[in-house]
Amino acid sequence: MLDVSGSPAYGEATVNGLLKKEGKASAPAQTSNEDMKVVLESFRLLIADLCQQFGMGHPGSAIGMAAIGVALWKYGMRYAPHQPDWFNRDRFLLSNGHACLFQYTNLYLSGYKAMTWEQLLSYHSERPDSLCPGHPEIEHEGIELTTGPLGQGIANAVGLAMASRHLGATFNRPGYDVVNNHTWCIVGDACLQEGVGCEAFSYAGHLKLGNLTVLYDNNQISCDGSVDLTNTEDVNKKMEACGWEIIDVEDGVNDVASIVAALEKGRDPNRSKPLFINIRTIIGVGSAVAGQAVAHGVSLGADNITKMKKAYGWDTTKTFHIPDKVKQFYADIPKRGNEYVSEWNDLLAAYTKAHPDLAQTFKDRMAGKLPDNWSSMIPSTFPTDTTPTRKSNNLAISKILAECPTFMVGTADLTPSVNLTWKDYSIFNPPDLEPTSGAQGSYAGRYIHYGIREHVMAAISNGLAAYSPRTIIPITSSFFMFYLYAAPAVRMGALQKLKVIHVATHDSIGAGEDGPTHQPVELASLYRAMPNMLYIRPGDSEEVAGAWEEAVKWDGGPAMISVSRQAIPQLSGLTRRDGVSKGAYVLKEEENADVTLIGVGAELSFAVNVATALSSSSPSIKARIVSFPSHALFRQQPLEHQRQILKRNEGIPAIVIEPYVSLGWERWADAGINMKGYGHSLPGKYIYDYFGYSTENMEKGIKGFLRDWKEGKIGRGEYVEL
Amino acid sequence: MLDVSGSPAYGEATVNGLLKKEGKASAPAQTSNEDMKVVLESFRLLIADLCQQFGMGHPGSAIGMAAIGVALWKYGMRYAPHQPDWFNRDRFLLSNGHACLFQYTNLYLSGYKAMTWEQLLSYHSERPDSLCPGHPEIEHEGIELTTGPLGQGIANAVGLAMASRHLGATFNRPGYDVVNNHTWCIVGDACLQEGVGCEAFSYAGHLKLGNLTVLYDNNQISCDGSVDLTNTEDVNKKMEACGWEIIDVEDGVNDVASIVAALEKGRDPNRSKPLFINIRTIIGVGSAVAGQAVAHGVSLGADNITKMKKAYGWDTTKTFHIPDKVKQFYADIPKRGNEYVSEWNDLLAAYTKAHPDLAQTFKDRMAGKLPDNWSSMIPSTFPTDTTPTRKSNNLAISKILAECPTFMVGTADLTPSVNLTWKDYSIFNPPDLEPTSGAQGSYAGRYIHYGIREHVMAAISNGLAAYSPRTIIPITSSFFMFYLYAAPAVRMGALQKLKVIHVATHDSIGAGEDGPTHQPVELASLYRAMPNMLYIRPGDSEEVAGAWEEAVKWDGGPAMISVSRQAIPQLSGLTRRDGVSKGAYVLKEEENADVTLIGVGAELSFAVNVATALSSSSPSIKARIVSFPSHALFRQQPLEHQRQILKRNEGIPAIVIEPYVSLGWERWADAGINMKGYGHSLPGKYIYDYFGYSTENMEKGIKGFLRDWKEGKIGRGEYVEL
Repeated sequence: MLDVSGSPAYGEATVNGLLKKEGKASAPAQTSNEDMKVVLESFRLLIADLCQQFGMGHPGSAIGMAAIGVALWKYGMRYAPHQPDWFNRDRFLLSNGHACLFQYTNLYLSGYKAMTWEQLLSYHSERPDSLCPGHPEIEHEGIELTTGPLGQGIANAVGLAMASRHLGATFNRPGYDVVNNHTWCIVGDACLQEGVGCEAFSYAGHLKLGNLTVLYDNNQISCDGSVDLTNTEDVNKKMEACGWEIIDVEDGVNDVASIVAALEKGRDPNRSKPLFINIRTIIGVGSAVAGQAVAHGVSLGADNITKMKKAYGWDTTKTFHIPDKVKQFYADIPKRGNEYVSEWNDLLAAYTKAHPDLAQTFKDRMAGKLPDNWSSMIPSTFPTDTTPTRKSNNLAISKILAECPTFMVGTADLTPSVNLTWKDYSIFNPPDLEPTSGAQGSYAGRYIHYGIREHVMAAISNGLAAYSPRTIIPITSSFFMFYLYAAPAVRMGALQKLKVIHVATHDSIGAGEDGPTHQPVELASLYRAMPNMLYIRPGDSEEVAGAWEEAVKWDGGPAMISVSRQAIPQLSGLTRRDGVSKGAYVLKEEENADVTLIGVGAELSFAVNVATALSSSSPSIKARIVSFPSHALFRQQPLEHQRQILKRNEGIPAIVIEPYVSLGWERWADAGINMKGYGHSLPGKYIYDYFGYSTENMEKGIKGFLRDWKEGKIGRGEYVEL
Repeated sequence: MLDVSGSPAYGEATVNGLLKKEGKASAPAQTSNEDMKVVLESFRLLIADLCQQFGMGHPGSAIGMAAIGVALWKYGMRYAPHQPDWFNRDRFLLSNGHACLFQYTNLYLSGYKAMTWEQLLSYHSERPDSLCPGHPEIEHEGIELTTGPLGQGIANAVGLAMASRHLGATFNRPGYDVVNNHTWCIVGDACLQEGVGCEAFSYAGHLKLGNLTVLYDNNQISCDGSVDLTNTEDVNKKMEACGWEIIDVEDGVNDVASIVAALEKGRDPNRSKPLFINIRTIIGVGSAVAGQAVAHGVSLGADNITKMKKAYGWDTTKTFHIPDKVKQFYADIPKRGNEYVSEWNDLLAAYTKAHPDLAQTFKDRMAGKLPDNWSSMIPSTFPTDTTPTRKSNNLAISKILAECPTFMVGTADLTPSVNLTWKDYSIFNPPDLEPTSGAQGSYAGRYIHYGIREHVMAAISNGLAAYSPRTIIPITSSFFMFYLYAAPAVRMGALQKLKVIHVATHDSIGAGEDGPTHQPVELASLYRAMPNMLYIRPGDSEEVAGAWEEAVKWDGGPAMISVSRQAIPQLSGLTRRDGVSKGAYVLKEEENADVTLIGVGAELSFAVNVATALSSSSPSIKARIVSFPSHALFRQQPLEHQRQILKRNEGIPAIVIEPYVSLGWERWADAGINMKGYGHSLPGKYIYDYFGYSTENMEKGIKGFLRDWKEGKIGRGEYVEL
């Protein structure tokens, strides 16, 4: 533990070798140091009281960051509490989301209307309608994105800053900076350790995002104790190596003035590097547990809070007390915010006069409008030769990508594999970057080379999507298997219902010789289980067209289009793009059928081939075929419709053919030809046979099952793995 | 693209601003430069021919790394091709696993018996028994771990180096360094970008792993083009900031001597920092596509290979040619290897005389033996008061942890939450590290503070486990939700059947006020779907005991024990630890039952309460209760046994109560009281009611379902979400 024994109430602690003391506040010129001291004390005590109320919560970091809060909400950020959705507002993210009370309290103090006093008091209460959940949530006023899982917030912030740079480069004209907001993000020690955070820092430095400022709440304490138990890297040097500018603030507990000065440097419009402000703070400062891990996640205790109040010279009988002086201090913020908005509205009006067409486009984008005819840009027919569905993707949407600037397409270093470029696509990169290969960058570019960083690609895309609804629709791409790397961010997108489209290629054992590390057999179970996620496996170009229509329309969250590496046959005349819209549809009906074969995605044609073989076997077996690209869409259909498609309630058993593990199919089928373990390294043309997916072998398995079925050997509800 | 137009055969390319030319080889003193040139050319052409054979593969990096291969296998590493499992061998990992042909060819050249000429030629063939899969796989001789998903290998390497340090600190005695092997790892640009790689570098630097050397194949090319498209950080500076020593090798194409010199510095036993050798290479050097992304993942083409041979002055009609001179160059390696082993055997014999008891312990550890009585260290009874199962964990296994040094326990900064310490536990940290909090470190310590780095925790644990089977059994711990961060590495452990035990706490909405970001509702679907993974949700302390017995015994891969944050009742007299062994068991039988209620894990008692309520309702409903902690174990049971437990084939419907999404339960139940979306931030005592898990509400739902069931409204195989 940090040694704070000498002075428990006014904590002294050694942080990074510096002796730290809570004491004389240093305020920007317009406020006295004495007044600032009251503001800071007031904030710390309010946090302590709020956590003590229900004996739960995360008080330590919020208390330690009091001065940072003042610097941001009072001085640094441009925002409008009474018009919280103002388009050009500064964005703020608390990447260390467990310290959420810090944000809620600052929202309250700066005058957000939804954050009433009663709401602030609801932190950790039994109120299901509380605006103060245990981590900040996007649904609530003043919160840009849901944070909490560590490292996500900083990655989201990079996305927000990229969105601003992109829209600025696209729409600003000399004298008319209609998009020039700044992004501010607080990170704790964890965001610097988490891999996704490391990816974010590295990539933001590369992108030279001068419109991004990170404030590092450097309290050197995590749950297990002092950070040097587990991390002894030279953080500033590492950040410099990643292309960031560094400002140190030695006394982040009291020195509001220095933090404000650093924020001002951050906002400088000529910055060509993101700014990292390394602010030394003390967790739980002023309390008996100052500088200790125990200050992190439990309330401080009534006695300790009383001691704090006493040491501050405050009335120990008062709880939740905010002196009038403090209220006055924050009182002008809503008015100031309204002024920002009205200045911007004036600017927008002048811009509309000077650049009427561009302004209309800008307004459409702000409103999240796509061209009315977007879906007609998808071809109505496709070539009939065998094609990998990853290439079908390009056939289906390259016109949309070229003509609808709403879409920004990214890839985790798989441009040659994912086929998501379009004619004359331009790269999103800093304008002064001349890479050894490829074209010079521009922030107006819409193709994003994320590097080999799948996780941050998805997390940044959440930020791009959250900048403003449907103003940018980010598309990500990688091999399906690497959406396991990206999964924590994909899930955060789903939780927040963010409009992101993920394109996952090489989605089956058909990926071939790369072997089991690259062959997804269980991953679809995760994405089929994930709430709000539209996971689709289209079976040929026609279904790919349907998948994109659904993915673009879907407003429930992210979508994932899962496509093949290998060439697969076009089932022309059988597949229907509108069939995709209900998740499953009858590909081929058969009167008095003996069995329903369910085909899926890259292996949809297997079902067709087996049905043909069964029909010509002796005795002939009649198989109807259902194409089943999406569980999520089929689950939304009424039971009656589901029964009409599957006909299991007419006594016809359903057998699914999909070389993934069975988990998830037991709901829709009575048996399956599924994978029972991991894949194998074999070229695509051999691997299916190796795992029993030859027509002959499948036919045999199905016949055996049907015999057992007719003899009543299959118990009700049982699922048979053939 | 890099400009190589001037001299396509002998590639010239600007890499990192240095003019690079394939040309005069520089060899260690005992070999002439001229001979070395032949060795390098021979290797490059062999790689080119092997990829050309089937027109597939990854030639570029392997060709570019020819000199690195010579430096490692001929000069740098201590290993024994004819005794490949020698305990104290150096470990080598190819983190850029797609370049696997590099490793296979070096295994062949250095005389590994399994890697016959015929086997080497099977790369990308149709042979399912090929030892040359598309990425290196642990099953095969000379391969330490399966690599491929980028960044995993470097993290595994950190685990291997930690294992060596730990075993050395535990068993070495003055004059008897029985464990002192070195770990070598090649990384490409990707491993430096991937988050898990960043975590690994940061943590390895902290740990001061002087027995780890990373060779950076710095070819500045990835799939999308030049690396500076997406990454412009100062890599050396970043690595220095992370605590690594740096050596630059300017000409990694030809300068074997400099690489060897760097490797010698790496092996210095007095090193207190891991070593990062930044080796400039040229992808596909010597070919027309030298320095270009296209050299990465497609074969070079016959014409181009002919040109290469011509430029080298080789016979263009010969393919797969290895000159005798080259064979001779490698010929002494097996003999040298056997000498290493026999020296070590002598050392071990002397050690056994000098330290007989310790040597016996060491031999038991090498043999992967646990004390015969390990399972009797689990208490036979537990306190009957309500207890979080995360605390039951400690009750169940703290004695094993204290007395069986085979176990190393790690946590991603959640020591106070996961309850996996034991009396006088010691921390694994460098001996000269004196952290601000906590005890001084020792490599003999068995408790690992991984920091807030879940992904690398799991990946490092794979390395710890792979050092030698069951010599170390690593345990990891975090909140269940963050095993989504760790999932790619957990999967790699499952694929490799590595013995790692993951402890996942806070495994339900009962985690409470942290809210939906921290409440897993869909994650179990992934781990239940993952082949080889033993996922168990025990319902109380007694089942926790059973879960640990199964987890320790399980030899199919990793296990995950999924436990509650919140206190839950002990179902004493009902739960049975031996019941866990078959995945599901009858908790309470009932004659002529109307329904089977399936209870699981933290909410097992809900089933008991509902059954009681149903029995006393009017008319009384008879519910039998099945506890179902593990799908993986239940799936292994014969169908007959499954039917005896579930009795669905006797016409009794089964209803599962688990606040996860239903996906996965449709196989075992006819209906479920499951989550339909994400959780909510509410304290634990309110959240279950909020989502309909009050006994009253569940009773109502079940009654409604049973009415429908009796009236035949539920179709065969349909699953109803209540």
